[in-house]
Amino acid sequence: MNSPWLLPFWIALGAIPGALARHYLIILFTEKLGTNFPFGTFFVNLSGSVLMGFSVTLIDKNIPWLNGLIIVGFIASYTTFSTYVLDTSKLGQQKRYASALIYFIGSPLGGLLGLKLGIFLAG
Amino acid sequence: MNSPWLLPFWIALGAIPGALARHYLIILFTEKLGTNFPFGTFFVNLSGSVLMGFSVTLIDKNIPWLNGLIIVGFIASYTTFSTYVLDTSKLGQQKRYASALIYFIGSPLGGLLGLKLGIFLAG
Repeated sequence: MNSPWLLPFWIALGAIPGALARHYLIILFTEKLGTNFPFGTFFVNLSGSVLMGFSVTLIDKNIPWLNGLIIVGFIASYTTFSTYVLDTSKLGQQKRYASALIYFIGSPLGGLLGLKLGIFLAG
Repeated sequence: MNSPWLLPFWIALGAIPGALARHYLIILFTEKLGTNFPFGTFFVNLSGSVLMGFSVTLIDKNIPWLNGLIIVGFIASYTTFSTYVLDTSKLGQQKRYASALIYFIGSPLGGLLGLKLGIFLAG
């Protein structure tokens, strides 16, 4: 399972559910809470940061296949930086400047707090 | 190709090369430039933001399979928010406070500029 030749397979196997969970959670949040604020991407990036703190604390760095599957594959694909930047730009274009600023600054700060929470929960 | 039943397939098909490109680019940057600064994730998130601006401008929103493949699958999985937050936390733990601050603030600002560059290039 730790063969370097298999690593791309483990990353791919994690990336598929990561990307799909992100996509369908964003749709769910949009259906429930509307489009005034990108609640979906906000939730995905914050919950993914908690998951990242939790996982890097618990998963042994010396198990490449498990790191590939969970951290590089699932969690890193579940969260997204480009959509976060795109959402911010869209809020600005819609002149929702307060929402844009809250989202733009709140995501990194919330993500960092989420990461610490994940590390704490795993400790 | 636009069947809603096929959308998860298109997203998965984009997510696999997205996650693999991210992983191997980060390894390449680490090998070339060392571990003092997370150049790899920085590059991936900024180039992914350029790609996002370029793609959302050129790709018709009414073609779900192409949006699923390129935007939700490839670009959103290529960039990563959770690794960005984890990198910031690691720099802080190593007491590299200047690097941590430059990376933490420079990534969102650089990403937003990158997105605008992508939109400009596609226009």
